[in-house]
This record gives sequence, structure tokens and C-alpha cells, in this order.
Amino acid sequence: MSAQIDPFYAIGISKIAHQLKAEGRSIIHMEFGQPSTGAPQAAIARAHDILDTDGMGYFDSVPLKTRLAQHYLDSYGVQVSAEQFVLTCGASPALVLALSSAFSPGDRIALARPGYVAYRNVIKAVNLVPVEIACDATTRFQLTAMHLAELIPAPAGVIIASPANPTGTIIEADELAAITVVCRERGIQIISDEIYHGLSYTSPARSMLEFEPNAIVINSFSKFFSMVAWRLGWLLAPPKLAERAAAFASNMYLTPPTLSQHMALVALNNQDELHEHVKVYTENRRLLLNALPALGLTAIAPPDGAFYIYANIGHLTDNSLQFCEKLLRETGVATAPGIDFDPVDGRHFFRISFAVSTPQVVEAIERLQPWFAAQTR
Amino acid sequence: MSAQIDPFYAIGISKIAHQLKAEGRSIIHMEFGQPSTGAPQAAIARAHDILDTDGMGYFDSVPLKTRLAQHYLDSYGVQVSAEQFVLTCGASPALVLALSSAFSPGDRIALARPGYVAYRNVIKAVNLVPVEIACDATTRFQLTAMHLAELIPAPAGVIIASPANPTGTIIEADELAAITVVCRERGIQIISDEIYHGLSYTSPARSMLEFEPNAIVINSFSKFFSMVAWRLGWLLAPPKLAERAAAFASNMYLTPPTLSQHMALVALNNQDELHEHVKVYTENRRLLLNALPALGLTAIAPPDGAFYIYANIGHLTDNSLQFCEKLLRETGVATAPGIDFDPVDGRHFFRISFAVSTPQVVEAIERLQPWFAAQTR
Repeated sequence: MSAQIDPFYAIGISKIAHQLKAEGRSIIHMEFGQPSTGAPQAAIARAHDILDTDGMGYFDSVPLKTRLAQHYLDSYGVQVSAEQFVLTCGASPALVLALSSAFSPGDRIALARPGYVAYRNVIKAVNLVPVEIACDATTRFQLTAMHLAELIPAPAGVIIASPANPTGTIIEADELAAITVVCRERGIQIISDEIYHGLSYTSPARSMLEFEPNAIVINSFSKFFSMVAWRLGWLLAPPKLAERAAAFASNMYLTPPTLSQHMALVALNNQDELHEHVKVYTENRRLLLNALPALGLTAIAPPDGAFYIYANIGHLTDNSLQFCEKLLRETGVATAPGIDFDPVDGRHFFRISFAVSTPQVVEAIERLQPWFAAQTR
Repeated sequence: MSAQIDPFYAIGISKIAHQLKAEGRSIIHMEFGQPSTGAPQAAIARAHDILDTDGMGYFDSVPLKTRLAQHYLDSYGVQVSAEQFVLTCGASPALVLALSSAFSPGDRIALARPGYVAYRNVIKAVNLVPVEIACDATTRFQLTAMHLAELIPAPAGVIIASPANPTGTIIEADELAAITVVCRERGIQIISDEIYHGLSYTSPARSMLEFEPNAIVINSFSKFFSMVAWRLGWLLAPPKLAERAAAFASNMYLTPPTLSQHMALVALNNQDELHEHVKVYTENRRLLLNALPALGLTAIAPPDGAFYIYANIGHLTDNSLQFCEKLLRETGVATAPGIDFDPVDGRHFFRISFAVSTPQVVEAIERLQPWFAAQTR
């Protein structure tokens, strides 16, 4: 058999949550990084139009790629061309393309632990070697230029995630610049996962492209754009790498959903509704940050962005999966166990997603308060 | 760099076709295997409903997988369970999943040459080794049990395609049974690409599962179901392999488009419109088979299914790419060069797709007749 792929434990939690719901229990879904809102209304309206007027075949929208290039100029002051984009069925296949097209089998790829579980698994699935860098609260759970300078031998690549999953921490501009310097010196290809851009509560996240034009960026319409069901993402790379990634895409995936591409173009031009979502997340985050100390959850990463809080529960358990299942069964609040993000230290953490409505956050806090008060190790 | 991935030359032909169209030329698109029809009207109606009533998140439709299991019972008399399906963004990622989850790096995978270009490229992209078996008119361009018995050493796997791309040939039941016997004896895992099932003009194609329950089947809603734009396919495998493929999918892809899954369930229950499409293809095929001898195209594979004719043009050219470009520029008929399907002998072949309307086929024949009459080597 090829790579050993770990399961995503939050899927198991979610299945229990749905069973409980079917039994009549009230469930609050805070286990996945999935906006509870749908696509923007203007995009939905466009979908109705297209359904009635266009037969639709394979489609690779040049207008969408051109509009995305404009988005990079507007948001980051970065000049890129439409040809540098490869449209994909979400950020996940964009990561597969980036890893498949930029590296050779056996290459070592550095990444932070904790981090998004799929990084480690996809690296293994395409026969590369993950090099996990243990990151803790002292670096806000992010890898640093110093980490990358100290790795021997130098890895072939590194995955940067800012804002990060599961912590929501953002890497500041000076550190991104320092990472760029080390990666250039050591010949490390950067892959920057910017899927949570647009969702930040301190200052906006900077794109790695502001510092390193040779970085490969992956992103999608699933988070800020609230179009998770529409499976549309992109890879943005220097021209030669983009051309190579496009060749892989035309064999491994063909084109992403046609209707989604039409809708995404409208979503890019109609962001007011999306900024309202961010206001909701901002309030949700404020409520949770206020409530957590009273729950005894004081060791958390500062959630600068995304819609997650990653909290230490080491004073209550050594088994975050068991903990999340107990919490779910006793309160109806579904969360994700830290072992999904960190196979070593994750047993002492859990992740709460606040991509729900504010009344649901209020209700969750009300359920969590008596429950946490009753817990002892 | 990792695998060398060949470009898909028909994409270049298509780009020229679109340029010519933009210049005002009348173009008949026969270069891609893409139905010119859209999704069934009942599915479109369902899409309108869902757009207005469902926010839509990540979705893995159990009702769709249950309905697909019924489809296998109805169409092939084969008993499978919903849990054996992995829903994907088209057949392409299903092939990536099948190869990634069933084999180890360096494993050898047999396949027919000519064949769908992505087979060879995806095998290489996931660090497996393609073993191309040269197939000619004597085996109707299909690999046989005898080919598989003679390969030394035995390959770890084989990709079977019936009906095949680019030829449309179907492997008969007795040969499928013989292939199963050899593969069992030699420990060869079968992947059966059944994407053109439902499109046959002689007798219906048989599923490999009728002969070998341990085969991995890939298929999609892009051909018979005419839902190419909706990017929905599936992998069907024995329970343990399906579980493993699902773990790869949850890391490499997450779920396929939500709306497409709702629509596909409706499409499975509303096939009358789709059978009308098959009647159109049947007439298109008849017209082309009648017309080809007068064009001097007498060496063709019998197109039992799919919507392709793969014809020998060796009496006219040694360069099928140049030939297709000249044909396009001089007649406006876009076709695919044989080198997309066979890097060795494909220079002497081209592929015509008849997944267009019957008037377009009539018009294409009218343009091809004087053009072929004027060609000499």
C-alpha cells in the first residue's frame, strides 16, 4: 500500500452530531470550518439566469481569472496576470497540484504542527515527505524564519498558512519578509495557503506574494466568499509553474464547475453581503473570547483571523477525541479534537469554529458554562 | 521535477477553433468528448428549487449513493452498497483516487495504447509506471487477456476502458471474463473506466463488476447524463478499498459540488431525455459511417459505443497534429489528433467526436467531402 492516510476525526464527531440530531437533540455545529451562510444573493441570481440560458460545457473562465488578477492588485498591490491562475475544485486540489507540479518524489516539505490535517496527508499521498515543525504558544503556533533556517538539510518546500487553521493566527509582515529571505537563501519553494484571507479581526493578512513573487498561492471561494458548496478554488504561481500545474490539472481534474465560475465572478463584484458575514464573525469571536476565561480556557492562541479558536484543555484531558465526544453528547455542541491538527500535542487541545450565527454562539456559551464548571481531570 | 506530463493537444486545436470563431468563421466542434446538450430539464428545475431553499454546505449525498447502488442492480444485476461509493468532482479525480489508494509508488499499471491521454499522465503523476500495450485493429484497439498473460513481470494493475476513448470499441463479455481469470491468477488489480456506459450502439456495455467484484469502477455524470459542467463522478470499490479511497478523498478533494449531487439524483430518475440524446448520437454515427468510405477513411475501429470515430489517416500524413490544424483552418471542423491518445502510432490517426447535433454532422460531412477529395500525401 502507498501512503498511510489519517482519518479526519471531526468527521466522526459530526456523524455522531447528526445521529443525535436525528434523535431529536439540539445540536450546534462548531466542528467544521464551514460558513453557515450561503453564496451571495447576487451570485444566486446569476445562477438562476445561467441555468435557463446556457447549456454549459467544460469551462475555464478567462473573465474570472482576469478579475482575480485585479483582486490581487486591489487587495495586495501585487501585479499578476490571468495566465498565472489555475482554477480548481476548491483549495484541496490546488494543494495537490502545487505539490505535484513543484516537487519530486521524496522531497521534504516543512509545515507547522498544529496545522490543517490535509497538508500532512496530501504531502504523503503524492509521495513527498512531511517535516513537521512543532510550534507552540511562544510563536503563536506558527513556524518562523528561524525554524526554517535551522532545518538540516533544508527542505525543498514549505507550506505557510496565515491566517492558520486551527489557530487563526496571522504571520506579521516582518516575519513573512524574514521567511522569504531564508527561503531564498536555502532554495525553499514557498506554498502559501491564503484560504482565510478576508477573514481577519486585527489587521488584514498580507499575501506572501507581496514579499516573494515566486511563491505558489492557493485559495478558494469557500471561506470569505461563503461558497463552500460550489467547490471553486485557485492556484496562483509564477508563469512556468502555473503552466506546469495547468498541465497536471488538465489530466487530473479537467475544469471546475461551470456554474460556480459564473457565480464567483459576480461574488467578486458584490462583496457587501460578505462583509456583513465578517461583522457576524467579529461579534462571535468577541463573545467567545469574553466567555472562555470563565470556562477555565485561558491558554488559547489569539485568533487574528479565520473563524477558529484553538484552546488548551490539557488540565481536563489527555484525549481530545474522547473529550469532544463527551462534550457533544452532554451539551450538543460539536467541536473538533486537536489530534486532527497535531498528532502529538493535539490530545491537549480542541478547536471551536465560530462560523455560525451569533444566537448559536450565545446558546453554545450557555451550554458550555455549566458543563465546564463540572469538569475535573 | 517530478513526472513529465504531456499536454492535451486537442486543447490547442480548440483554442485555434475559438480564435477562428471570433474572426467570424463557422466552426463545428468535434474535438472534445463533450455532449453539446445540457443537464436534463428535471435536474435544472431541481437546481432552481435548491438555489432558493438551501444554503448548502459540504455535502456527501447518501440518497445519491443509495440510488447509484440501485442503478448497478438495475443495469448490471450487481449488488453493491452505498458505502462502496466515493463521490468525486468527475471521473478524473476518481482515477487519481483509485491509483493513489490501491497501489504503491513504482507499481506498474498496464493500459492500452491508444487510450485516453490522462491515464498515462495520471499514472505518472502519482508516481506509478505506465506499461503501454500497443493495440491495433486486430484486437479492435483493446487490450486482451492474452496481452495481460504475456506481460513479464505481471503488472500490479490494469486500466480497462469499454467503451474506449478514442475508439468507442466495447470489450465483449467473454473477453471480460477471460481478463478476470488472468488478473486473478496473476494478482492484477483491475480499474474499469465505465464513463461511456449508456452510450452504445450495438449491445450494451457490460460492467466489469459482473465478472470481478473486486474491480474498482470509475464513472461520471458527464457523458450519458450530459452533465459535464457539473463535475460529478464516482468511484465504486470493494468496501476496504472504498474506505481507503474515501480517506484520500477527504484530504485531497473534500466533497463534490452540492447542487450537482441534488441534480444527479433527479437525473437518475429522469432518463427519457437522455435516451433521446442517444438516438441523436445513433443517427450521427450512422451518417458518419456511411460518409467515411467516400472520404477515403476506410480503416476505422468499429465505434460500438461512446461518441467517437478513430480513423487512420496514414495515407495522408505522418503528423496528425498538423493534419488536424490544417483541416480546422480550411473547413472549420475541429477534431483531435491521434497523438493525444497514442504517442507512437497516433501520428497516423485522428478522432472525430459526434456528440454534436445531427445538422452539425451533416454540415461537417459536406465540408469534409471536397476537402478530403483534394488531399494527397
